[in-house]
Amino acid sequence: MSSQKILFKIEGGATVSAFAPEGETLLETARKAGVDIDAPCSGNGTCGKCRVKVLEGTVLGEAPRQISPEDYAAGWRLACCIRAASDLSLEVPLSAGAFKNRIKVTTLSEGRERAAFDALGKDLDELGYRGDSGLETTAITLTPPALDDAMADRERLLAKYAEETGREAGIGIFALRKLPGILRESDFSVICVARKGPDRDLILDILPAAAGAQAVLPGLAVDIGTTTVAMVLTDLRTGNLLAGGSGGNGQIRFGADVISRIIESTRPGGLDRLRKAVIEETMLPLIREICTKAGIAPTDIYRAAVAANTTMTQLFTGVYADFLRLEPYVPAFFHGDGFRSSDLGLNLNPDAEVILAPSIGSYVGGDISSGVFSSGIYKKDSFSLFIDLGTNGELVFGNSELLMSCACSAGPAFEGGDISCGMRATDGAIEACSIDAETMEPSLTIIGGADQKAAGLCGSGLIDTIGELFRCGIINAKGKFIRESKRIGHDEYGAANYILAFAENSVSGQDIALNETDIDSFIRAKGAIFSAIRTMLAIMDFSPDDIEEVYVAGGIGSGINVEKAIRIGMFPKIPLEKYHYIGNTSLTGAYAMVNSAGAASKVIEISGGMTYLELSSHPGYMDEFVAACFLPHTNGALFEDR
Amino acid sequence: MSSQKILFKIEGGATVSAFAPEGETLLETARKAGVDIDAPCSGNGTCGKCRVKVLEGTVLGEAPRQISPEDYAAGWRLACCIRAASDLSLEVPLSAGAFKNRIKVTTLSEGRERAAFDALGKDLDELGYRGDSGLETTAITLTPPALDDAMADRERLLAKYAEETGREAGIGIFALRKLPGILRESDFSVICVARKGPDRDLILDILPAAAGAQAVLPGLAVDIGTTTVAMVLTDLRTGNLLAGGSGGNGQIRFGADVISRIIESTRPGGLDRLRKAVIEETMLPLIREICTKAGIAPTDIYRAAVAANTTMTQLFTGVYADFLRLEPYVPAFFHGDGFRSSDLGLNLNPDAEVILAPSIGSYVGGDISSGVFSSGIYKKDSFSLFIDLGTNGELVFGNSELLMSCACSAGPAFEGGDISCGMRATDGAIEACSIDAETMEPSLTIIGGADQKAAGLCGSGLIDTIGELFRCGIINAKGKFIRESKRIGHDEYGAANYILAFAENSVSGQDIALNETDIDSFIRAKGAIFSAIRTMLAIMDFSPDDIEEVYVAGGIGSGINVEKAIRIGMFPKIPLEKYHYIGNTSLTGAYAMVNSAGAASKVIEISGGMTYLELSSHPGYMDEFVAACFLPHTNGALFEDR
Repeated sequence: MSSQKILFKIEGGATVSAFAPEGETLLETARKAGVDIDAPCSGNGTCGKCRVKVLEGTVLGEAPRQISPEDYAAGWRLACCIRAASDLSLEVPLSAGAFKNRIKVTTLSEGRERAAFDALGKDLDELGYRGDSGLETTAITLTPPALDDAMADRERLLAKYAEETGREAGIGIFALRKLPGILRESDFSVICVARKGPDRDLILDILPAAAGAQAVLPGLAVDIGTTTVAMVLTDLRTGNLLAGGSGGNGQIRFGADVISRIIESTRPGGLDRLRKAVIEETMLPLIREICTKAGIAPTDIYRAAVAANTTMTQLFTGVYADFLRLEPYVPAFFHGDGFRSSDLGLNLNPDAEVILAPSIGSYVGGDISSGVFSSGIYKKDSFSLFIDLGTNGELVFGNSELLMSCACSAGPAFEGGDISCGMRATDGAIEACSIDAETMEPSLTIIGGADQKAAGLCGSGLIDTIGELFRCGIINAKGKFIRESKRIGHDEYGAANYILAFAENSVSGQDIALNETDIDSFIRAKGAIFSAIRTMLAIMDFSPDDIEEVYVAGGIGSGINVEKAIRIGMFPKIPLEKYHYIGNTSLTGAYAMVNSAGAASKVIEISGGMTYLELSSHPGYMDEFVAACFLPHTNGALFEDR
Repeated sequence: MSSQKILFKIEGGATVSAFAPEGETLLETARKAGVDIDAPCSGNGTCGKCRVKVLEGTVLGEAPRQISPEDYAAGWRLACCIRAASDLSLEVPLSAGAFKNRIKVTTLSEGRERAAFDALGKDLDELGYRGDSGLETTAITLTPPALDDAMADRERLLAKYAEETGREAGIGIFALRKLPGILRESDFSVICVARKGPDRDLILDILPAAAGAQAVLPGLAVDIGTTTVAMVLTDLRTGNLLAGGSGGNGQIRFGADVISRIIESTRPGGLDRLRKAVIEETMLPLIREICTKAGIAPTDIYRAAVAANTTMTQLFTGVYADFLRLEPYVPAFFHGDGFRSSDLGLNLNPDAEVILAPSIGSYVGGDISSGVFSSGIYKKDSFSLFIDLGTNGELVFGNSELLMSCACSAGPAFEGGDISCGMRATDGAIEACSIDAETMEPSLTIIGGADQKAAGLCGSGLIDTIGELFRCGIINAKGKFIRESKRIGHDEYGAANYILAFAENSVSGQDIALNETDIDSFIRAKGAIFSAIRTMLAIMDFSPDDIEEVYVAGGIGSGINVEKAIRIGMFPKIPLEKYHYIGNTSLTGAYAMVNSAGAASKVIEISGGMTYLELSSHPGYMDEFVAACFLPHTNGALFEDR
């Protein structure tokens, strides 16, 4: 059998043709051909999201559980589970490209996101981390050249710069290319934007004097999450926020978790494909949009800081990542420094320094070193627990003298992954839920306002919903449905689910329901978090009562209903007032690093002093995990009032 | 009249279609469409090289003198002189793309090119400029990571590097991307290639230990001439030559001289077009070929030095160049530093430093600062004259205490430009000529060997031929033909020419002949050189007899027959033994700069101390020039035996 010709007919769009060699799944063929098909499980046949419809031709492959008999009869298949037995014509629904989430951009002038930055800003002021981004503007007015004074533009500028500042400087290629024109357009009066260096300064940009006096000095802080990329633009002179935004990480079609991404990156061309998915598909458009919002050009950005987990950091920088998942689990680098925007393929000023938050281990990355700085736990004498709920969960416990970190394989449930109706915390997401114990009717809070139809369930909504289902006795300790009502649906195999929103209140026009498989995913996720906390404390010879404060971080929605999270055994039962939800600390930490060289150094210092605990190799962890995979726990005494 | 559709049918190749707006010449249309048509005069209707044949349709434009009546009748036109009056179909002969000269690559194991480097090598040894390229290799063997020693690869390497060298280091992105793989492939034994820095070193590359011990440390020296780009690859450990090559500068289709190129660069997209023409069309393929010859990859090149005239330097770096030709004639920079390969779009190691030879003024560039170093005149107590014959002519006069430089608009004749049968000094070029005074039969030396048919006339052959025509009384002092023989041809207007090679001995199958227009171009070129020497010496209050040595540089062929050059009044009449032909000193100087930081600093020092004389603004120069536009000179006494 030779290769077959495949026509991918994208709903409402183009037709793409490709050849499928024998034995290749149609998901693989689609990826090679550049046809976007979402596959959070990276083609393992578990997530059921890579649906395509066979219009013509014959395919090989069994009927998967995720496709109903009616849909199967109509030609629907999972692209990852079928192979071509003849030439084919396939319909690719628009929803297959839904991982390309709309970018959301905001001015950050108010709201809870803003509050986190304001709080951190006060902190930075107290710590003296202000105005030390290392960037400086200098106004320069030159004597124009003449026939008897034919000094070149660069040397003319640098002589005057040295006179004004007392420092030697060089000029980057971007500024040099602008130099002859801008000098003459602005009558030889300009503003130099320079980065101070140990030997000499580097002039990054040259602005006309007229425009420069009131101008901002833009810096960019980025959190590259496995699921979501978030960024804020800040004025490095003042620390003021200029704009912010977020979007789905374009890598998600190669798998929802870091392991799937690493595996994909080891395939031919894979590393470059993943690097481009996050940079060219996600970051560059997002940067362009927030710059438009702030009224600047991307090349006006003179400094950036990026915080990400270790895998995301290596895939972003294009560094081979396979050794992260192979024993002895070693990152390529803890601390990558000296990078410039042009090294990484970003669209900022090409000479802009890009600072990376340092990693601590293969599964505790720069998002955590950045987050620990942002939380402030490294400054306190008392002991705090820092919990970051992202696509994975990471924990840090300690104080100003001792910091211990670990990661737990919580999976992507808190960001909507592995949940049939899951989604990121963006417009349409159900971010909070309460259920009437008697009628079983839910009250929902949906991101985007009261008139917004529901599109799915984000992390905070998921915790709420399962907490409420358990409180109302709708599910039992194993997460199985034990009551019936019109809110309880059943699939063709008889499996039950809870309908959060009926078709008429849903964006897709289909019911939004949570099934037992979803609840099971969640229980494993919360069990991983809880057992990791227990194991780490035990190793350090601490008990939950020794925890003075708990800081919960992550971009999971409205924050977290701690009472419900404790009820279902996700967090230890200690007084509620000890818990603080502090938002996306990876991003706020990056904001501190871009604004302040002192803060950036502090993050490096914190990461260097932090111990990394490899939980999976620790005896006893597995038992703790199994015991935690109940609601709330096999040992109910842990959650009784004392 | 709206725009017309034009089909360019390229001989033996593709058909390209384009639209020509009203009033646009078809040369302009062709350029926009990416159709290569040579036009050394940049579309001024003078060079006659942009021939195209009208197959269908109607064009507007007068019959130019460069097209014979037969060819005109057959549809031949000059693309720069016609406009479309209807849709057109045009034939573009292959010769229109001939500026894309074949690249010539050599191992430089012998021959006269090699001799120049050997001589300079001795000089560098004497000056102590050896082994100080700033690059160093260090062998490193690491303890492999383990579960209880999970230090990241980068930090593991840098700790050991500091231990071995006593110096801190960072790692460039290129080396970092290779790091995890190469460590494991080579059992954690590697060679680090690093550039030493004032604060810390930068590791540019990491090689397996097995390969590294005997490896070379490649550096690249480049001369970007207006007409020709030449380069050599050298081993920075030893200064040995690994390979060399040259090719036509792809910018030549935008004009033979720097002024045409500058004008083209100011048009929309022009600067980028010119930058890409020299980098992507010329340098990148040439680098790939010499690397193949030397058995290395371009990314193995860790340091480069580039010498070029001021215009070429600015167009190569992408810096706006129009102010070079506008009063007060100011370059954007004398000394551009801190550039890396990736800044400039080269294909070397992305972190390779690219050193630019500093310019002295708008028309005396890095090729001259580099050449003066190479000539050694800056070291001597006695006074020397340095003459660089390139597409323009530049002069430097002085000694260890004083150096004065100037440029003269000699035009491109010495590199084959503005000469109907002119070409670069490459295979097929007539590089030497003597003529029998009685029979008028020539004896030719052709580059490429005795069996090689002639393709044209290069600079050295041109000086020879005109010297011989004058000596034999075939042309008079005004350059007009005054004898007849079978070697004298006549065009359809009756104008005479001298046939150097008949059709059967010519590559093109057409006579190779030198006409009076060519001779006139040459007389103006040699007149510019001679009058510049006279004027500069007069300003400094010197006479030709004060010149101790004359160094003639340039890539004009076999070197120069000084006796003939004096006979026709190109050089002053001083003893022949004072003249030395020293080859392409722009390239040999770049070779010194790439091999030695000390040499590079010395070139900067020389350029900083050199005075630039703007000849065109000097009263008396024009009179000198007019007087020199005869063979040998209107004042014959200057060339009589004394």
